[in-house]
Amino acid sequence: MATQFAPTGRTRLRRRPQRGAYDKETVYAVLDAHLFCHVGYVLEGEAFVTPTAFWRAGDRLFWHGSAASRALAAQADGQRVCVTVSHLDGLVLGRSGFTHSVLYRSVMAFGHPVAITAGPEKRRAMDAFIGGLYPRRPAEVRPAHEAELAAIVVLSMAIEEASAKIRGGGVNEVEADLNAPCWAGVVPIAMTVGAPLPDPALLPGIAVSPSIAAYRPGARLEDALAGRNGSGDVPPGGK
Amino acid sequence: MATQFAPTGRTRLRRRPQRGAYDKETVYAVLDAHLFCHVGYVLEGEAFVTPTAFWRAGDRLFWHGSAASRALAAQADGQRVCVTVSHLDGLVLGRSGFTHSVLYRSVMAFGHPVAITAGPEKRRAMDAFIGGLYPRRPAEVRPAHEAELAAIVVLSMAIEEASAKIRGGGVNEVEADLNAPCWAGVVPIAMTVGAPLPDPALLPGIAVSPSIAAYRPGARLEDALAGRNGSGDVPPGGK
Repeated sequence: MATQFAPTGRTRLRRRPQRGAYDKETVYAVLDAHLFCHVGYVLEGEAFVTPTAFWRAGDRLFWHGSAASRALAAQADGQRVCVTVSHLDGLVLGRSGFTHSVLYRSVMAFGHPVAITAGPEKRRAMDAFIGGLYPRRPAEVRPAHEAELAAIVVLSMAIEEASAKIRGGGVNEVEADLNAPCWAGVVPIAMTVGAPLPDPALLPGIAVSPSIAAYRPGARLEDALAGRNGSGDVPPGGK
Repeated sequence: MATQFAPTGRTRLRRRPQRGAYDKETVYAVLDAHLFCHVGYVLEGEAFVTPTAFWRAGDRLFWHGSAASRALAAQADGQRVCVTVSHLDGLVLGRSGFTHSVLYRSVMAFGHPVAITAGPEKRRAMDAFIGGLYPRRPAEVRPAHEAELAAIVVLSMAIEEASAKIRGGGVNEVEADLNAPCWAGVVPIAMTVGAPLPDPALLPGIAVSPSIAAYRPGARLEDALAGRNGSGDVPPGGK
């Protein structure tokens, strides 16, 4: 199996190519550290960007929504869409405006989503999604009704092309400014997890679900996601 | 001045309209709580989504990049682009897969970006950007060289249409599941600020810049952004 996405006209970084990566390990690491993506698609000739939760299984990305969604219908109409996942990791303050920047990791992944319409496959996909976020949660909850599955559509997209772009490090200062008597540095930013808030309607005596054990209060979201240890679910679709 | 963006075919929420808002106060609150957006645009008939830092002044959004950027050139080629800003606020675990969800706030804003190409106007815009994030920082740093300004392009986009979509609250449970002996609740998520990391090349005795005073370690990023108290800069472009 290829360990690298071949750079294409869509994905090759022309500027600052040293920030680009095409190996699957890097691309998947950026993807798997988040659960929220931005899907770009064309509708009547114009671009739309919809934020949505997503998950990955092998070389495929998945997301879902209402079966009545105009956005999802457009995304599955045969067009190539762009799924972008980004992490804002910090603010960079240099000694000139020019060396102010942000730290980030991002991936642009391109492919042609297809709709999963069969009930059993949708059920498997949704269990993989929820079980991927919250291990063994699918066994805790009431199984989906057929009508619930009928009300949603799951999109499955083989990643045909992808690149990662990463700006790490610190201040990339202009040499001539290094002696300026001006503070410079980085303000780190991270997505963090808060203490779980039980549903006010919870029955008495119900303990917090072990499926959210990795989401420790104060943890970085990406560390929580890395701590899920896999869901044990079979990746759905298109294998 | 209108206090509301008129809903259009692009921005009207067809599904769950109760989650939609078109008033400028709500739209701007979602925008101003972040500094990172996802710009969707069409290039050779296909959608691309680029994450980038942005700022707002009045009814306009701004972002910038290399003057050689193919993406920015496409965005300023006369097309209508979609700027999406989103906040992931929490994970919702219901008593069935169907009532699992995420908490979020998002805005989709549409307009036709134009490139600011004149040096003085770019300088004003960049000072407004940096001074907006870090009050009085423009006076601390070495002013931009003309060559630095020439190397960038700033895009300015009047917001022609916009909608906010907000999923707040907690578990929206199916009535029949309320008696299930299953934990349900919300895991809050927030972007938070870490302790500033001084540039290792900093001269001895340089105190942390007061311009980042609002970015207190442990603070939510959006609270830090709200604590900037305005930059005092004149909003650039198109006034």
